[in-house]
Amino acid sequence: MENKYLEIPAIKAILSRKSVRRYTESQVEDQKIETLLRCGMAAPSGKNIQPWELIVVKDREKLNAMAEALPYAKMLSEAPMAIIVCADINACDYWYVDASAVTENILIAAEALGLGAVWTATYPYPERMDVVKNVFALPENVASLCVIPVGYPAKDYQPRDKFKTEKIHVDKY
Amino acid sequence: MENKYLEIPAIKAILSRKSVRRYTESQVEDQKIETLLRCGMAAPSGKNIQPWELIVVKDREKLNAMAEALPYAKMLSEAPMAIIVCADINACDYWYVDASAVTENILIAAEALGLGAVWTATYPYPERMDVVKNVFALPENVASLCVIPVGYPAKDYQPRDKFKTEKIHVDKY
Repeated sequence: MENKYLEIPAIKAILSRKSVRRYTESQVEDQKIETLLRCGMAAPSGKNIQPWELIVVKDREKLNAMAEALPYAKMLSEAPMAIIVCADINACDYWYVDASAVTENILIAAEALGLGAVWTATYPYPERMDVVKNVFALPENVASLCVIPVGYPAKDYQPRDKFKTEKIHVDKY
Repeated sequence: MENKYLEIPAIKAILSRKSVRRYTESQVEDQKIETLLRCGMAAPSGKNIQPWELIVVKDREKLNAMAEALPYAKMLSEAPMAIIVCADINACDYWYVDASAVTENILIAAEALGLGAVWTATYPYPERMDVVKNVFALPENVASLCVIPVGYPAKDYQPRDKFKTEKIHVDKY
């Protein structure tokens, strides 16, 4: 038994995950950040290539620069930190699929840790990907899938119920 | 408190998830299948479009037909069932990103439920996507991301430790 937060059940965390866009001023503890990164890297990848690269951002100027330039990531100006999920695009052609699994792991882990987070897409929008590329002077072969602001939720967010039986097909379409 | 399996902690389930390719002959209970589907549909999606469509396959002939035609899904011939993650490709341009989040949710939920599963990619391989399209006579606008065989693990699988500090960048790349 390590930490209380580790006891949040998996199914509950998956079903409770929601997009959290407003945060308190509390910093995210380093141990929790490491857990988020560890969970991200536990994702599967095609041929086990693990093309991902993760950027942890706490630098206020860089968070603000992204908030200003990314149309759906304005909340970065109030978030205490963010994780950017990137990948080596030369490592495999479908890096964004592997990076999506990383992102989902991080989002579920954030929910389990009592944090709030949201997937703000940069891929497949060239102008948004360029923002991240420029702010961090990324090498030519590194591209970003998304920027994930992370913090403690400023209010009580409720998950949406998106279960729809009409989307389930059994043995035939 | 519903079921024992719901008590598996989220972080543990994420870190314990592994690709399980051999299964016992036990069937997967309907309640667990519904939980897998419910977790899949709890994924986030761009603009909340929810482009996904899920096919549950228990039909032995269809499982075998896919096992025969898909190069990395031979284990379907022994799996009691599979879930195919599809999407309406006209609903959004990056359907495979949303469908990847669905897939990862299902894989983590399977781990949490004591099941074993594995992501066998059909996207981005046209010939593999055609196999699914043909076996299920999918409409023109529906494409598959992957086929996920699901069953009870036939042996004790251990997760890989893929945590690599060299993939973590703090405030600069």
